[in-house]
Amino acid sequence: MTITVAVDAMGGDVGLKVTVPASIRFLQETPDIHLILVGDSAAIDAELHGLQDALRARVRVHHATEVVGMDESPQLALKNKKDSSMRVAINLVKEGQAQAAVSAGNTGALMATAKFVLKTIPGIDRPAIAKMMPGIKGSTCVLDLGANVECSPEQLVQFGIMGSELAASLTHKANPTVGLLNIGSEDIKGTDSIKRAAELLRESGLNFHGNVEGNDIFKSTVDVVVCDGFTGNIALKASEGLAHMIATFLREEFASTWWTKLCALAAMPVLKRFKARVDPRYYNGASFLGLRGIVVKSHGGTDALGFRIALEQACEEVRANVIGHIADRVASQLQNLKRSESEA
Amino acid sequence: MTITVAVDAMGGDVGLKVTVPASIRFLQETPDIHLILVGDSAAIDAELHGLQDALRARVRVHHATEVVGMDESPQLALKNKKDSSMRVAINLVKEGQAQAAVSAGNTGALMATAKFVLKTIPGIDRPAIAKMMPGIKGSTCVLDLGANVECSPEQLVQFGIMGSELAASLTHKANPTVGLLNIGSEDIKGTDSIKRAAELLRESGLNFHGNVEGNDIFKSTVDVVVCDGFTGNIALKASEGLAHMIATFLREEFASTWWTKLCALAAMPVLKRFKARVDPRYYNGASFLGLRGIVVKSHGGTDALGFRIALEQACEEVRANVIGHIADRVASQLQNLKRSESEA
Repeated sequence: MTITVAVDAMGGDVGLKVTVPASIRFLQETPDIHLILVGDSAAIDAELHGLQDALRARVRVHHATEVVGMDESPQLALKNKKDSSMRVAINLVKEGQAQAAVSAGNTGALMATAKFVLKTIPGIDRPAIAKMMPGIKGSTCVLDLGANVECSPEQLVQFGIMGSELAASLTHKANPTVGLLNIGSEDIKGTDSIKRAAELLRESGLNFHGNVEGNDIFKSTVDVVVCDGFTGNIALKASEGLAHMIATFLREEFASTWWTKLCALAAMPVLKRFKARVDPRYYNGASFLGLRGIVVKSHGGTDALGFRIALEQACEEVRANVIGHIADRVASQLQNLKRSESEA
Repeated sequence: MTITVAVDAMGGDVGLKVTVPASIRFLQETPDIHLILVGDSAAIDAELHGLQDALRARVRVHHATEVVGMDESPQLALKNKKDSSMRVAINLVKEGQAQAAVSAGNTGALMATAKFVLKTIPGIDRPAIAKMMPGIKGSTCVLDLGANVECSPEQLVQFGIMGSELAASLTHKANPTVGLLNIGSEDIKGTDSIKRAAELLRESGLNFHGNVEGNDIFKSTVDVVVCDGFTGNIALKASEGLAHMIATFLREEFASTWWTKLCALAAMPVLKRFKARVDPRYYNGASFLGLRGIVVKSHGGTDALGFRIALEQACEEVRANVIGHIADRVASQLQNLKRSESEA
């Protein structure tokens, strides 16, 4: 299966100097992949200079005249920058020239553009942002991470379906378990909306585990954790903040005297292996789910390794036909709903 | 100033074997403190056996016949266990025999009992749970951590006042900065309720910084972070889960071969100093704020060091007259509100 990915080559804090090297490395490692690099074609060509012919044959450069700024208003970007590298990359997915788009650009603009261009899958009210998070015994898919500040119980069920299909494609588990993020495992906990969502999830046909708590995200209690975008965003950012604090403290302690520096040197191989297990670059790539096309958002500040991981994630989603599976599952849910309504 | 603290000696996963040694150590370290140990008097006396007279003179044992189980329903505990060690400790605060109560028991039961016995401060709708969290440049007070799943904008302002007074007492800062937990720093972010809370906080006379994000909790961006109890609980638990995962990975890597174990031995002093900076025992003690009495909840599973930290926190709150300050500030706010209403 040959897959073509459209890359917003200009997006992110660094842009071309990250996206192009990541793309080249990705081509070297993955034989069945073609890439369309979207952006300033002269600048991209310069970055591709000297690339061996076999690889160059699998890259197309698609010129786009504009770039969406990292702090630009999503609505203004959508309205005014119709030839931005981000917009054009998504257009290529819409037109069927690519099966997925990857961008490290402005999250709000990317979501607004993707929603506008690709539209949602029938039966999905609004797209959600999903991400794999590391856990003690394997990673967990968490969604929504910020696209929807308030969510109906029905939307949370849709997130369950979407997350379940993403987790199945990325972790290769047949019937992923789904947990509902709450402040306690008991049924009486949480808001009325959460309680209703738990009822609906129980009837949904998903492999519903029940309520989970914040710590369950990193305990690998379930494969998918469902929550509204406000809570999910706070949990994600709080975790990022804590991880950064811990890394800073560890670095400071090992750097404090010549003796501790010597200790660090001795312990380096161990510290390196530890670091690799929590390296955020290996968890880079947030999927915009619920759209009629695959869009993966890379962290704006990541490097070429992180961006490559986001490209890999996009390809995995294509290979596993995540969108087809979500559409099928939502359609059959709607069918069941209609049937039970007509029987009632 | 002599302070008397009522200790629920039976509370927590372990009970007496943690609470009594912690109490003895606390007496040794803090000359102006008296303690009332509440619970099974025979069992407590046995734990106190051999204590030197000077310390023994500062401890009173108060018999209570019942214990609230860690998984007991808060409402049933409140209704049926009127002679529980937890209830009697809070009664002692109500009666003025103690200035604060500390318990490692069932959180829900402790909150229900404290609310029922002590009542809230006039102008405070409902109490909140507040905790100091570690940060890169100093600790941050976060509230609410789970007492209120949904909060009005007015309640969030009350939390701002309460958190501000707690942070002032525990960090000795004159005018602590207050941030509102949100999914972005811009004013347009979040729910309508959050936006309204930001407006009210801006007019409140508090040192309001504006919106903060999840990572700001650990970046020491502000002294106080205000949020509803649902979001706060998820952020706290997610952080606990991540910290546990990181500690597990670090331990596993250093324990994997004889060589890495040797590395661990060499790096031990450094790892110990690092551990001390993130040790949850030093951040043990959640304050129930908004009540007409000081109640501090210790983590149920902590050891004697952790419980002692909770005792210290209770004393700090008494010394700083946190309740008096909260009451004054809320009263003057209500006064201003009445004045502006009568002028309007």
